[in-house]
Amino acid sequence: MTRVDHSRMANAIRALAMDAVEKAKSGHPGLPMGAADVATVLFTQFLKFDAADPRWPDRDRFILSAGHGSMLLYALLYLTGYPEMTLDEIKNFRQLGSKTPGHPENFMTPGVEATTGPLGQGISFSVGSALAERLLAAEFGEDIVDHYTYVLCSDGDLMEGVSHEAAALAGHLKLNKLIFLYDDNGITIDGPITLTDSVDQVTRFKAHGWNAVRIDGHDQKAIAAAITQAQSSDRPTLIACKTTIGFGAPTKAGTSKAHGEALGADELLAAKKALGWDYGPFEIPDDVLAAWRNVGKQGASAHADWRSRFDAMGDAQREEFTRRVIERRRPPALADTIRKLKEKLVAEPPTIATRKASEMALEALVPAMPELLLGSADLTPSNNTRTKGLKEVTPADFSGRYIHYGIREMGMASAMNGLSTHGGFAPAGGTFLCFTDYARPSMRIAALSHTPVVYIMTHDSIGLGEDGPTHQPVEHLAALRAMPNMRVFRPADAVETAECWQLALEHTTGPTVLALSRQNLTPVRVSASSENLSGHGGYQLVAAQGEAKVALFASGSEVEIAVAAQKELAARGIAARVVSVPSLDLLLAQPAEHRKAIIGNAPVKIAIEAAVRFGWDAVIGLDGIFIGMSSFGASAPAKALYKHFGITAEAAVEAAAKRLQNL
Amino acid sequence: MTRVDHSRMANAIRALAMDAVEKAKSGHPGLPMGAADVATVLFTQFLKFDAADPRWPDRDRFILSAGHGSMLLYALLYLTGYPEMTLDEIKNFRQLGSKTPGHPENFMTPGVEATTGPLGQGISFSVGSALAERLLAAEFGEDIVDHYTYVLCSDGDLMEGVSHEAAALAGHLKLNKLIFLYDDNGITIDGPITLTDSVDQVTRFKAHGWNAVRIDGHDQKAIAAAITQAQSSDRPTLIACKTTIGFGAPTKAGTSKAHGEALGADELLAAKKALGWDYGPFEIPDDVLAAWRNVGKQGASAHADWRSRFDAMGDAQREEFTRRVIERRRPPALADTIRKLKEKLVAEPPTIATRKASEMALEALVPAMPELLLGSADLTPSNNTRTKGLKEVTPADFSGRYIHYGIREMGMASAMNGLSTHGGFAPAGGTFLCFTDYARPSMRIAALSHTPVVYIMTHDSIGLGEDGPTHQPVEHLAALRAMPNMRVFRPADAVETAECWQLALEHTTGPTVLALSRQNLTPVRVSASSENLSGHGGYQLVAAQGEAKVALFASGSEVEIAVAAQKELAARGIAARVVSVPSLDLLLAQPAEHRKAIIGNAPVKIAIEAAVRFGWDAVIGLDGIFIGMSSFGASAPAKALYKHFGITAEAAVEAAAKRLQNL
Repeated sequence: MTRVDHSRMANAIRALAMDAVEKAKSGHPGLPMGAADVATVLFTQFLKFDAADPRWPDRDRFILSAGHGSMLLYALLYLTGYPEMTLDEIKNFRQLGSKTPGHPENFMTPGVEATTGPLGQGISFSVGSALAERLLAAEFGEDIVDHYTYVLCSDGDLMEGVSHEAAALAGHLKLNKLIFLYDDNGITIDGPITLTDSVDQVTRFKAHGWNAVRIDGHDQKAIAAAITQAQSSDRPTLIACKTTIGFGAPTKAGTSKAHGEALGADELLAAKKALGWDYGPFEIPDDVLAAWRNVGKQGASAHADWRSRFDAMGDAQREEFTRRVIERRRPPALADTIRKLKEKLVAEPPTIATRKASEMALEALVPAMPELLLGSADLTPSNNTRTKGLKEVTPADFSGRYIHYGIREMGMASAMNGLSTHGGFAPAGGTFLCFTDYARPSMRIAALSHTPVVYIMTHDSIGLGEDGPTHQPVEHLAALRAMPNMRVFRPADAVETAECWQLALEHTTGPTVLALSRQNLTPVRVSASSENLSGHGGYQLVAAQGEAKVALFASGSEVEIAVAAQKELAARGIAARVVSVPSLDLLLAQPAEHRKAIIGNAPVKIAIEAAVRFGWDAVIGLDGIFIGMSSFGASAPAKALYKHFGITAEAAVEAAAKRLQNL
Repeated sequence: MTRVDHSRMANAIRALAMDAVEKAKSGHPGLPMGAADVATVLFTQFLKFDAADPRWPDRDRFILSAGHGSMLLYALLYLTGYPEMTLDEIKNFRQLGSKTPGHPENFMTPGVEATTGPLGQGISFSVGSALAERLLAAEFGEDIVDHYTYVLCSDGDLMEGVSHEAAALAGHLKLNKLIFLYDDNGITIDGPITLTDSVDQVTRFKAHGWNAVRIDGHDQKAIAAAITQAQSSDRPTLIACKTTIGFGAPTKAGTSKAHGEALGADELLAAKKALGWDYGPFEIPDDVLAAWRNVGKQGASAHADWRSRFDAMGDAQREEFTRRVIERRRPPALADTIRKLKEKLVAEPPTIATRKASEMALEALVPAMPELLLGSADLTPSNNTRTKGLKEVTPADFSGRYIHYGIREMGMASAMNGLSTHGGFAPAGGTFLCFTDYARPSMRIAALSHTPVVYIMTHDSIGLGEDGPTHQPVEHLAALRAMPNMRVFRPADAVETAECWQLALEHTTGPTVLALSRQNLTPVRVSASSENLSGHGGYQLVAAQGEAKVALFASGSEVEIAVAAQKELAARGIAARVVSVPSLDLLLAQPAEHRKAIIGNAPVKIAIEAAVRFGWDAVIGLDGIFIGMSSFGASAPAKALYKHFGITAEAAVEAAAKRLQNL
C-alpha cells in the first residue's frame, strides 16, 4: 500500500464535514476543519482501536466533548470503516433515524463513546472513563485493562464550570492516562474568545495538578510529540492545540462564521480548492479511503493479542469480567440478597431514617455486588453511603470501592456516566436531594443515554429541618419525575428502601434517583412479602374497612402520616384506604387499567407529600386534595415545619371530613 | 472609649457562634470560629457600612458565600448594632420565624446581602454585585458609587464548578474592587481536603487574571496588609487565609468534627477557657459590645458625606438613581411602550419566531428602560438578545448595557442575581431553554430570594430541530413550572411575546422565564386588545360556535396547531374553543373560580404542547388528551419532528373526534 500524505487524510475529514453540513443545511463545519490535523495524528499514530469491533473492552476511548463538531467523529468512523457508519449515514447527517444526529449520541451510533453537545459533559464524563480504567486495571491486571482516554474539547468545554470539577478530580486522582486535546481556536459563537475570556488554560490546568503544554495544532510533528510526552506523564495532560476554526475556508476560517452553519456553495468550493481537494461532494479518492481503512484495522493485532491474554485468564476472573464489563449483567445474588434483608427487616422493623435504611441495604449489597461503586459529593456521613470497611480510592491505590468525589455534584454525576458507560461498574453517588439541581445536566445525559447509575439523594424534604429553604427540596421530586427515562423512588421505610434499591440496580436502561429522609420514620411495611411491592410505583398499603370513601396517597416520610390519618378516619367511621406511592412516575407509567385499579374510585382522593402538588393531579384529579408544600420551606426543626406547613394527619383527616360533608 | 483588644472582639463572634449552635443543637460553629479574625479585621478596619442603615446604596457589600457559617454574619450584625438583629434573634438561631435561619436569606434579614448556603452561589453572586458597582459608577460617577465587594468563601465554594465561571468572568472584566477572603481551613465534611482536592488555588486564580496571595488567617497584621494591597490592585483579589476550623476548641479544632454540629457542653466550655473568654452563654462584656457598636457607627460620617454629595447631584440624575437603585420602581413608560408595540404588531402581524419577537420587544424597551441590562451566555445571535447599537461592557468601558457572559450559564444566572440585588439594574440574560439545567441552582436562589431577573430562553422545544435531543427541552417547562415563585411564559406570537415581556418586567418580586421559539410562528393575536390578555396565564383565543364540545389548550408554538385543529373541527361541525396558555403556572395560580371559568366544561379537553404532559393534568384532567412528547426528542428538521412525534392539528382532530364518538 502506498503511503498517503497526512494532509490528504486530514482533508478527507474536512471535506466530509463540509459536504455533510452543506447537504443538511445545518451543523458545525468549523471544528472538524480546525481539528482535523489533531484527530488525524491521534487516529493514525496513537489510538488503539479496531473498527471491526467498537465494543472491544480494552480499546482506547476517544471522546468528542465538543459534540457540536460531530461530523469530525462521524467522518472518522466512516473513514476507518466502522461497519454501521456508511456513506449514506454521512449523507443523512442530522436527518430523522440516521446514525448521524446533530450531536453524538452513544446509544445511537457504535463508535460514539459519549453523548455530548451540552458543553463540559464530555470532559467530565471522561474522568469517569479514565477512572474506570484504573479501577479495572487494579482488579483485573494491566494485561487486560490498559488503555488511554483521549478527549477532544473546545473553548466552551473549558469555560463551563464542570470543567473545573472534572480537572480537579482528575488531577487529584492523578489519572495519568487521561489526555485532553484542547481545540484552542479562539472563537466562540459571540465572536473572538477575547470578548469573554482571559484564562490562561495551561497555567490553570497546572494548578489543578495536570501536565499541560501548548502547541501548534496544525503541526503534525508537534501534535505527535505532545501525545507521546503525555502518554508517559505521571499526571493527566492538557495539550492546548492552537488551531484555526474552519481551516481552509478562504473568507470564514478563523471567524465565528465558520462555527455553526453551512459554509455555502461558493465558500465550500473555494475551501476545497484552497485545500487542494479536487473531489465532488462526499467523494473520497480510493487511495485516501484505503489508507484510512487501513488505520481502522491497525488495532486488529493488538485486539487479537488481548483476546489471547483474556482467554488465558483464570476462569473466575474471566467470568467476572465477562459478566460485568462485556455482558453487563447484574449478579444473580441480587434479588436473593434483598429478599433476605426484607425478611430480617419485617421480623424486627426498625424506626430509622430511610438514608440509614439505605446504608443497611448497601451493607448487604456491597458483598453481593463487587461492581457497586459508592461515593458522595462530600456528604459521606450525611448520605450514609460508605459501608463499614469499604476502602476509599486514592491516587496511590485504585483497589478501593469508595469515591470521595468532593464538593462537585455535576462532576460526580458526569463521572458516574463515564464509569457506567465504560463498563465494569454500577456507580451510586450521594448528595442532598436539593443539589440534584447542580447535577441535573449530567443526570439528563444519563437518562437520555440509557445509563444505569443510582443517585442516593438524602435530606429529601423540609424534614431536613434547620438548614432551611436553601437546602430543602420542594420542587425537585416533580422536576425529576418530569424527565423522561429518569426513575424516582421515595421509599417510606426500611422495607421499601430495600425494594427500591433492588429496582434501582435491576434497572439497567437508565438512571434512578433514591430520595431518602434525614429523619426517622415509623415502619409501615410490617408483614412479609416476597414480591417487590414497589415495582409498580404504588400499591395498597392499608385496605379500607368496606368501600373506601377516602383514598390517601403518599410517598416516603408522609406515608406514616397517611397511615395515621386512615386510623383516625376509621375511628370516625369513615372508610379509607392508603396507597403507598414509592414512585409516582412508575405508577403513572403503568398500563391504564392497572393504574386505575391502584388509584381506585374513592370519592375523596388525598395526596400527601412534603413537596409541591405539581404532577399529583394525575392521581387525585383536579378536585383532589393535596396536603403538601406550595412555597419554599423554612429554617426550623422538622417537627415544627410539618406543623407550620400543615402536613399532618390531622390536616388530612379534617380535609377529608369536610369534603365528605360537601359531597 | 477604651480600645479593646482584637482577640477579644474576635472571640465575641466565636462565643456567640458556639452558644447559638449549642442552644439550637444544630448549625456550624467551625467556620465562625476559624474566620473570626479575618472578619474582625475586615469589619473593624475596612468595611464601609452604617449599621443604622443597612440599605445605604454605597455601602461596601460583605457576602458570606460559605453560608453554613451564618452565625459569623449574625454575630457581626448583632455586635455592630443592626437594629433588627437583637440578642433574642441570636438565641432563636434556626428557629421558625427568626431572622437567623440556618443559612443566610437576604429577604429575611436586613444586613444579609445574599442568600447563600448552596455552595458557590455567594461567590458567583458577588461578581454581579461588583459589576453593578462598576456599571453604576460609570453612569452616575464615583462620587456616588464607589464601594468594594468583599466575599468570605470556603473550600466548598472553590470546589464547585461555578467558582470557575465566576472567577473567569471577574478576572476577564478586571473587577478590581472584588475581594475574596478564602477561609482556607483545609477541612470538608468528609475529612481533610487532601482526601479530595489538590488544587493550588493561588496559582489557579492567577491563571484567571486575579491578584492572589496566601496569608496566615489568624495574623491580624497580615490580614490588614493583604486587604490594603487588594484595595489598590488593578485586578480582583483572592486572599487565601490559612485558618484553623473551630479555632479554640481544644479537641475538635482543625477537624471535620468542628464543621457542622454543636460542640457539646464540655468542649464549648473548654473552648471558652482556651480563648480566655470567661463569660456565660450569649454574654458579651460591655467593653467588647461597646467597641463593636462603635464599629457599627464608624461609617456614619462617610454615609453623611455621601448623602451630601447625593443631594448635590443634578435633579434628573438623582431622580433616576432614586427610582432605580433606592426605590426600584420600573419606569412609567413601560406599559405604554408595550401598548404601542402591540398596536403596531396587530396592524401588521409578522410571521416570525418568538425569539425574534422578543428582539422587537427589546428594541422598544431598551430606550424606555435604561436599567435593562441584556446579555447572553455566548448565544447572542441565537437568543436575539442584543438590540441594534447596544454597546457591550468591556474591562475598559463599563458604560455599555450588554454583557457577553461567556459559556457560563450558572455564572450568568448568579451574576444576574447579584446585579439585580445590588440595585440599579433589571438584568435579562439568554441561553437555550435546555440549558436552564445548568443555571438551575442560581435560578432557584432568585425564586427563593424574590429577585426580579428575566431569563430569555430560546429554542424552546423539538422545534429547534437538527441539534437533536441533547439540545431539545422536553421536561424543562415542567421542571421550571414546579419551582415556587418562578414564572414561566411561553408566548404564541409577537403580540403575546410583547405582553409577556411586560409581565416579566413588572414582576418585581421574583424571576421570570421567557420560553421562546427558534422557528417562525403564524400570528394568532390579530385583533387589538389594550388589556394584557396573558396576565392571567390563559385566555380564550378562539370561541366555539355554540356550546363547546372540545376545548383545546396550548402554549407557544403549539397555539397555531390548536387554532388549525379548531378550524378543522368546526368544518366537521364540532364546536371547539381554543385557550391560549402563555403561562400554565400563572393559570393554575388563579383563584379557583376564575381558573375554572377559563378552563370551561367542554367534555373533551385536549392540551397541545411540544413537551411532557407532567403538570397538564391539572387543566385537562386524568382523562384529558395530551398531544405532546413522552420521550426525549430526536435530530431532524423541525417539521419532520412534529410529524414524527404526532404533534399536529390532524392528530388533535382525530383524537377529539374519536373521543367524542366514545362518550
